[in-house]
Amino acid sequence: MTSPNPQSAIGIFDSGLGGLTVAGAVHRAFPHEAICYLGDTARVPYGAKSPETVQRYAREDIAFLLQQGVKVIVAACNTVSAAALPELANHYPVPVLGVVEMGVETALESSPRRIGVIGTQTTVGSEAYVRAIHRRVPDVSVIQKACPLFVPLIEEGWTDHAVTRAVIQEYLSPMRDSGVDGLILGCTHYPLIRALLGEFFGSAVRMTDSAEAMVRALRQSFDRGELPRAEGNHARCSRYYVTDRSNRFEQLVTAFMGEDDLQVQQIRPDELAMTLEKDPR
Amino acid sequence: MTSPNPQSAIGIFDSGLGGLTVAGAVHRAFPHEAICYLGDTARVPYGAKSPETVQRYAREDIAFLLQQGVKVIVAACNTVSAAALPELANHYPVPVLGVVEMGVETALESSPRRIGVIGTQTTVGSEAYVRAIHRRVPDVSVIQKACPLFVPLIEEGWTDHAVTRAVIQEYLSPMRDSGVDGLILGCTHYPLIRALLGEFFGSAVRMTDSAEAMVRALRQSFDRGELPRAEGNHARCSRYYVTDRSNRFEQLVTAFMGEDDLQVQQIRPDELAMTLEKDPR
Repeated sequence: MTSPNPQSAIGIFDSGLGGLTVAGAVHRAFPHEAICYLGDTARVPYGAKSPETVQRYAREDIAFLLQQGVKVIVAACNTVSAAALPELANHYPVPVLGVVEMGVETALESSPRRIGVIGTQTTVGSEAYVRAIHRRVPDVSVIQKACPLFVPLIEEGWTDHAVTRAVIQEYLSPMRDSGVDGLILGCTHYPLIRALLGEFFGSAVRMTDSAEAMVRALRQSFDRGELPRAEGNHARCSRYYVTDRSNRFEQLVTAFMGEDDLQVQQIRPDELAMTLEKDPR
Repeated sequence: MTSPNPQSAIGIFDSGLGGLTVAGAVHRAFPHEAICYLGDTARVPYGAKSPETVQRYAREDIAFLLQQGVKVIVAACNTVSAAALPELANHYPVPVLGVVEMGVETALESSPRRIGVIGTQTTVGSEAYVRAIHRRVPDVSVIQKACPLFVPLIEEGWTDHAVTRAVIQEYLSPMRDSGVDGLILGCTHYPLIRALLGEFFGSAVRMTDSAEAMVRALRQSFDRGELPRAEGNHARCSRYYVTDRSNRFEQLVTAFMGEDDLQVQQIRPDELAMTLEKDPR
């Protein structure tokens, strides 16, 4: 790895717009850093697709961010982190941080005895969280549950709705009854129903989401000198790219990012593939 | 248009596996016809994507089926039929039938005074059903509602579940209370909750789904001699292609098609794009 340019942007990618919860948190924590975000909205969601397809899409997403000259790559997408990162992370000239490893480090800080993990089908099916937890603490008990209806419910805007409460009840009663004391929100959408999950699990269950985990990981990388901070105190120009722009786009950007004046450029997914062809890894 | 080979397959495509409800109905109605099916499962769903992206994907899907030598193309996907077909249908050497036009013809047979249309966001946003109805009967009243949670609920297998009943209630009470006497199920997934919708609307509301509409359209085309029937009485070999095969694949194929021994081949979505480059239209 060559020494990265401090003034380069922090690259963040996700299958869609959910990763804006991570981008928003990173922006608020490090306001002098530029962000270069890619949301693959033309092929979203990744969460019900095969590991092979997720890996191919992830390679294309990373190649695009590298071409933009970023100093670090954040895989905000839990599905990518779970299904593709272990194989991919070491092949690139800049660090690639995944939300799975970072989420587990944060979750284990409170020394839980039984951790619940919720995410997409592909994330849960990969068992990546289970392996990452047991690599650090072999005797902690882990209980997983795929919650495929949470993303569509959140995108419908039903973040405080009786139907969403009923789905939480149906999906997560066995997990709650098993006595978890930690919960990893393994999907970038889930911070938007954090209040409902807190209401359901109660205050004794410590929740960790991908946004806070990634802010913590970047802060450590800066503090340890593994990643150079941007110099100067002026605000930097961030760039946001998507591969499709639907008619509900502005609404979702506002929900996930908390900002409604984001300047977003559109690229085509076949341009991503072309980037990869020029620079295959 | 050149005269098609009677022995060629009926081409059917969809954004994913929902179109198997159409393929299954076509297979049962015309058992001597071969089917060539393409489900673009690597990029599913189309229903929340922009019309431009849906049009590009549809061109690639159609180019692939043409390369397979089909005699007719059925756009089983309502989103494609609504957002892409009006522009695309006349550019091909074989007929391209969309479920919107065919669904409207079937729905209007019972002379409804007020028709409800349910579908994805892009289907409803296109107003294609409204235009197709008013082109035929200008004074029938049409009320639309996008129901984005139905597809994930159906894919979760909750086709007879209290949560699905609650979502139907929330989405469709205004439509029911407005006094519709016809309902178009404008998405290939919805036949799987036809019983619940019937329970909610009551027997006075006549429902039309894409599968029955397409069988009716093909029967007319055969009867009018616009499309040649396959000759002979032996069963033909159908082919099924998808662009991704997730771990829930078999389960979904069985739910939509009613068969669990389907032989399915996987192709990559960039192979679809390459087909289009060789034969651009």
